Amino acid sequence: MTERAFVPGHVTGFFSAHPNDDPLVAGSRGAGLALSDGVQVAATPAEETTLAVNGERVEMAAVANVLDGFAVDARVECETVLPVSAGFGVSGACALGTALALDAHAPDHPDLTPRTENELVALAHAAEVEAGTGLGDVVGQARGGVPLRLEPGAPPHGRLDGLPARPEVEYVTFGGLDTAEILTGDTAALTRAGEAALDRLLDDPSAGTFMAASRTFAREAGLLTDRVATTIEDVQDAGGEAAMAMLGRTVFALGSGLSDAGYDARRCSVTSGARR
Amino acid sequence: MTERAFVPGHVTGFFSAHPNDDPLVAGSRGAGLALSDGVQVAATPAEETTLAVNGERVEMAAVANVLDGFAVDARVECETVLPVSAGFGVSGACALGTALALDAHAPDHPDLTPRTENELVALAHAAEVEAGTGLGDVVGQARGGVPLRLEPGAPPHGRLDGLPARPEVEYVTFGGLDTAEILTGDTAALTRAGEAALDRLLDDPSAGTFMAASRTFAREAGLLTDRVATTIEDVQDAGGEAAMAMLGRTVFALGSGLSDAGYDARRCSVTSGARR
Repeated sequence: MTERAFVPGHVTGFFSAHPNDDPLVAGSRGAGLALSDGVQVAATPAEETTLAVNGERVEMAAVANVLDGFAVDARVECETVLPVSAGFGVSGACALGTALALDAHAPDHPDLTPRTENELVALAHAAEVEAGTGLGDVVGQARGGVPLRLEPGAPPHGRLDGLPARPEVEYVTFGGLDTAEILTGDTAALTRAGEAALDRLLDDPSAGTFMAASRTFAREAGLLTDRVATTIEDVQDAGGEAAMAMLGRTVFALGSGLSDAGYDARRCSVTSGARR
Repeated sequence: MTERAFVPGHVTGFFSAHPNDDPLVAGSRGAGLALSDGVQVAATPAEETTLAVNGERVEMAAVANVLDGFAVDARVECETVLPVSAGFGVSGACALGTALALDAHAPDHPDLTPRTENELVALAHAAEVEAGTGLGDVVGQARGGVPLRLEPGAPPHGRLDGLPARPEVEYVTFGGLDTAEILTGDTAALTRAGEAALDRLLDDPSAGTFMAASRTFAREAGLLTDRVATTIEDVQDAGGEAAMAMLGRTVFALGSGLSDAGYDARRCSVTSGARR
């Protein structure tokens, strides 16, 4: 039998990087949006591990690490409308979805014992950190809504809050950024800008301040590309709110901000956390 | 303009009581289910505070305390299919829903500033504790799913986990129990039984063990009434899993457990946390 899980997409507006030798303690602080455009994951214990995303066989270290954590092989199939490597947390979603779906086999599988959600989130977070493909998507995706990462890391190390807002969101993407390259480079300026953005948002925890703090962060962290910057300006000129998704050449906007500015954008909404 | 929030119902299977002079630290440990049968709350700042549940004017100390915390008067209207005072956390849902819905007025109201979800949950939790009508529903309802209350209290004091299961649930109710009377009485035996049940569930975090630990708790805590006990036995005789909702003369069952045993039960499902 195949078990399934849904994990929301997650765009980060700003973050600070907090590396640590322990992947459960390592992570990021920052803020993002959990999106109804997400990843449907189906997992079945199998003789040999295979992973397909939208029907295409791929390798994904975060998923492989999750399966190592369970010490089982499995056939994992992920379906998503989200672009990969463009700042939507697809690898984190695949990792967390694999953990949730595989755990559902525990009652019938001799090598699996049931785990709590915190245990599954911790496993997927560590898997993603060790893969170098993300620092905060998994905990945000598990929580849902508008997650604020107050303290880095997986449960019980990390600490989360959220904005109660549930806005509609539009997005458009112009390609990927190399998350691993940025996260293993000099993150001092980025982290300074991310900490300032979080302070600002906690001072005024509103959707508008989230977007404004995210724009300031992208500029100060030196991550803004020309096309992304122009698109954000276009949305603001049309009276909307937009920012850059970390880490991708992606712009997200509140409500109909991108279509109002004439872009052909995909529309979704902020949604609850991962579930099976 | 009226703002709205949905808060799931919450049945507790077992708990231990942890009173404290600080209502943010006071709370319960235990486990429950967040139900898709919940409370829709509409709140609008008004000249004078009024509260209606299903169209009927009522007083509810937990909601009054929330409004005190905002220092505004409001018209609050709650709609629910759930029976009141029967172990579904309706007062906690009304309190949390009021906090979430009223906060949505912050951008347009001179006396309101936006708050984070943790702040709103803390406000509603303290309001419910001070009203004496609940110790753990609010944090469970905010989280959703199958909440495990590992440590008592509101954020940042409390600590939560969850079971990843999302079962269908049936319930039938034979009337209320006086929550305030039980919680202000001698809770030593109850708390001993609740702690043992949580240890047992954390050892094997599965839906079946949740139900079994809940049954043992109800018996050991001396809360089982005859009609509830008979109904639980009927469900087990029919091959199902049932337990008592704390604190009410209510039986909940996994899947179609109650209808399989011939009861006229209401059906719903485990759902995500409170949202507006």
